[in-house]
Amino acid sequence: MTLEAQISQIMNHSREAFLTYQDCSGKVKKTFLYTVASEIEALGDELLETAAAETNLPVLRFAGERERTCNVFRMFGNLVGEGSWVDAVIDHRDADRKPVHRPEMRKMLIALGPIVVFGASNFPLAYATPGGDTASALAAGCTVVVKGHPLHPKTSRLIAGAFRNALLKNRLPDHIFQLVESDSFEAGKLLTQHDATAGVGFTGSLNGGNAILKYAQQRTAPIPVFAEMGSINPVVLLPDSLRQHGKAWATSFADSVTIGVGQFCTKPGIQLLVKSPESDDYIQCLAESLAQKKVYRMLSEGIRNNYLEGLNRTLQQKGVSLVYSKTNDAYLNAELAIAKVKGDIFEDNPQLHKEIFGPFSLIVECSNMEQLVEILRRLNGQLTTTIIGTDTDLHQHRNVVSKARNIAGRIVFNGTPTGVEVANATVHGGQYPATTDPRFTSVGMDAIKRWVRPVCFQECPDHLLPEELQENNPLGIWRKVDGEFVR
Amino acid sequence: MTLEAQISQIMNHSREAFLTYQDCSGKVKKTFLYTVASEIEALGDELLETAAAETNLPVLRFAGERERTCNVFRMFGNLVGEGSWVDAVIDHRDADRKPVHRPEMRKMLIALGPIVVFGASNFPLAYATPGGDTASALAAGCTVVVKGHPLHPKTSRLIAGAFRNALLKNRLPDHIFQLVESDSFEAGKLLTQHDATAGVGFTGSLNGGNAILKYAQQRTAPIPVFAEMGSINPVVLLPDSLRQHGKAWATSFADSVTIGVGQFCTKPGIQLLVKSPESDDYIQCLAESLAQKKVYRMLSEGIRNNYLEGLNRTLQQKGVSLVYSKTNDAYLNAELAIAKVKGDIFEDNPQLHKEIFGPFSLIVECSNMEQLVEILRRLNGQLTTTIIGTDTDLHQHRNVVSKARNIAGRIVFNGTPTGVEVANATVHGGQYPATTDPRFTSVGMDAIKRWVRPVCFQECPDHLLPEELQENNPLGIWRKVDGEFVR
Repeated sequence: MTLEAQISQIMNHSREAFLTYQDCSGKVKKTFLYTVASEIEALGDELLETAAAETNLPVLRFAGERERTCNVFRMFGNLVGEGSWVDAVIDHRDADRKPVHRPEMRKMLIALGPIVVFGASNFPLAYATPGGDTASALAAGCTVVVKGHPLHPKTSRLIAGAFRNALLKNRLPDHIFQLVESDSFEAGKLLTQHDATAGVGFTGSLNGGNAILKYAQQRTAPIPVFAEMGSINPVVLLPDSLRQHGKAWATSFADSVTIGVGQFCTKPGIQLLVKSPESDDYIQCLAESLAQKKVYRMLSEGIRNNYLEGLNRTLQQKGVSLVYSKTNDAYLNAELAIAKVKGDIFEDNPQLHKEIFGPFSLIVECSNMEQLVEILRRLNGQLTTTIIGTDTDLHQHRNVVSKARNIAGRIVFNGTPTGVEVANATVHGGQYPATTDPRFTSVGMDAIKRWVRPVCFQECPDHLLPEELQENNPLGIWRKVDGEFVR
Repeated sequence: MTLEAQISQIMNHSREAFLTYQDCSGKVKKTFLYTVASEIEALGDELLETAAAETNLPVLRFAGERERTCNVFRMFGNLVGEGSWVDAVIDHRDADRKPVHRPEMRKMLIALGPIVVFGASNFPLAYATPGGDTASALAAGCTVVVKGHPLHPKTSRLIAGAFRNALLKNRLPDHIFQLVESDSFEAGKLLTQHDATAGVGFTGSLNGGNAILKYAQQRTAPIPVFAEMGSINPVVLLPDSLRQHGKAWATSFADSVTIGVGQFCTKPGIQLLVKSPESDDYIQCLAESLAQKKVYRMLSEGIRNNYLEGLNRTLQQKGVSLVYSKTNDAYLNAELAIAKVKGDIFEDNPQLHKEIFGPFSLIVECSNMEQLVEILRRLNGQLTTTIIGTDTDLHQHRNVVSKARNIAGRIVFNGTPTGVEVANATVHGGQYPATTDPRFTSVGMDAIKRWVRPVCFQECPDHLLPEELQENNPLGIWRKVDGEFVR
């Protein structure tokens, strides 16, 4: 069979399975998602060791990533088991309205259809085959086809087995979840462009995300594409905080720059501060903290080469000076590095605004707060912006907050951007190039909103309505009825 | 100044005005939107007469359309004045969680930026310069640049004056609303592709919507485009209803096909029924009802030519037979027409699945319910699907409802699809080719969701939070706090 015929068969199976799965109740989906979590846990140490071997990351890291991943499946299970996520809205009939009566209208969110997921290299569990895109799409009632990442095929295969078992145990159609193993770009293109595909989720590089978006744009019928492509996650270190807590923040940011060998989409790529004796101390403390860190292997040769190229290109830019670096010649090892540059030079050089995926951070020394704020204002879209400041700082520099809000999906105060909490209020999104659509998030419960559409029933007899919209609210969910939330 | 320089200046002004307008409170926006409504009303008969002269539609129609339009501005005013529309979500800190505490996260919706609006020809008020796209974007806190429709320049200019007065009276920046008058495609392209443009709303033809989408896809930074492009709005007439109420429905659908000279995006373009003596009676009654109607002028020569071409192409298709037609030679007058075709022929001819914008409807005579359901299942995306059935019908043919749900944004029971109610639960959307993104609606209060993005504040001091997210809820809005709706 040709690749095209294979992909076509897979997507047609997905469409067929969707016709069954879209009508499953929230309770059925909850049980299924919980079973997925148990089946992933049942893979035991083999999963952790396989993921570690395929990524060069420590086994212990995958104990944590597995826990997070299984939590996410259970949280989405709870969300759809409870049911209020469908945003039911009911406007009752107004028979007395003139000149014509107001009809009764009831609406809720329903699943889009088969979703194609492209996972990330750096989180083979939390952001890949069993990641948030897959979990949120399955929770919505969509079927999922994952294009497995070529850097961790064995991990993906183990996970696919867990899905197969979970579907079998819940007597659900096999094709609700399918894994495509292929390292050709053609497979990604065919998946994105197939007639049955109703949406695409992507986590990875800017180049990768742009390519998938282009494939989608070649379709006759447009479909939603949500690509999360990382960013440089600016950190603003305000003067009083540097004075009072500079050393402690240097320790925190040395951790944040190097966690996962810097291979996090929320890694702080630039740090903005006003040059002063305190800022010099901070930079020195950051270098000393980095000196305590070990050098580790990166995910792959390609990723390491990209990192070193990006790093060297940055270091060769006019006005950029290396502050500290640590490396060794061992296979795939990543150079830890920080560099600095003056604000006006940074501002004028777009090369320095690009993400460098690895344990590197660039300190931007501004001549004053006006320059710092202007640099922040002119940055591209970001997943996060972090503001480090004492009460005094924050009272004095409120305008930093409004600038941060205009460029980022999440604004972190006195913390590090790495480590994205999965909650109702999470936003892991932002304007391009952080993502392809700033109106959505790929982490947190609202990630489900990417894969659903509203449908409105006008003057529909009660017995034909989905339970979510029936007058007596049999599911006991929160609904907006005539403008008020009631349950 | 070149066109490019002009457009660039306009969009840069819009971006600058946005920096002020985005921070206006809900109350300020409400007052502004109410003033817009009053200023439109203050234009008096001149507006109605101008719109009538530019569209060949009766003055009386514009009294109604003006009322609807002003209502929409006041409804959006009420929405943002009340404030709960920002979907505030708060997850409190959990200091005891192991291994690390859960941070406090608060999120809400904020405005995207300058929005470009392309209005429709057929509703110079409700779906054009002062239409739902403009009203919802301004309510969100976005600035708006309208590309005026070349068929009603004078109406647009009057409306622009009303906006100018409303801005002046509220001491808001002029450039919150701008009108671009140009009949060149190049202007639309430049507006869509300008760097400052954060989103596009379009209402019009499939060709027009596709062109705008293509322009947007050529941008480096993708932006949301919501194009509402109409559909054929299938009507399913079930057997018992035809038997019992066929004549009454024939009267209703003769009205629905001809209202606004058939120039409605929700006009019932096809009517599906199972051939029987009752269906023959229905068709005859429909023809008789049409015979009572007058023939009116269409919006323009171009629209009339397109209509006649589409109508003639349909009538020339194999198996299509004209049931009734009424016409005259007067300038721009539209031929009223209905035709019929057998189900199997309709199913195989995609030409018959295209929208024909004008007072024409095609009756599809199916050999049985299975064929009817299969035709419905295979239709393209639709704004609406209408189901006409008695209790007996609906009990017997429940599967019609699930098929309708899978293809349409709104399902109307025992009513006509024309006349879109503006309410909380309204969905005026649907899968392509009805729109470019089935996740949104262009009518109803949720139309505002197209122009906003979530932003999350993590561990933000209370005094730096927007009022919507402050702990003591000073605005008294509905919020989801730790998973529960409270006010």
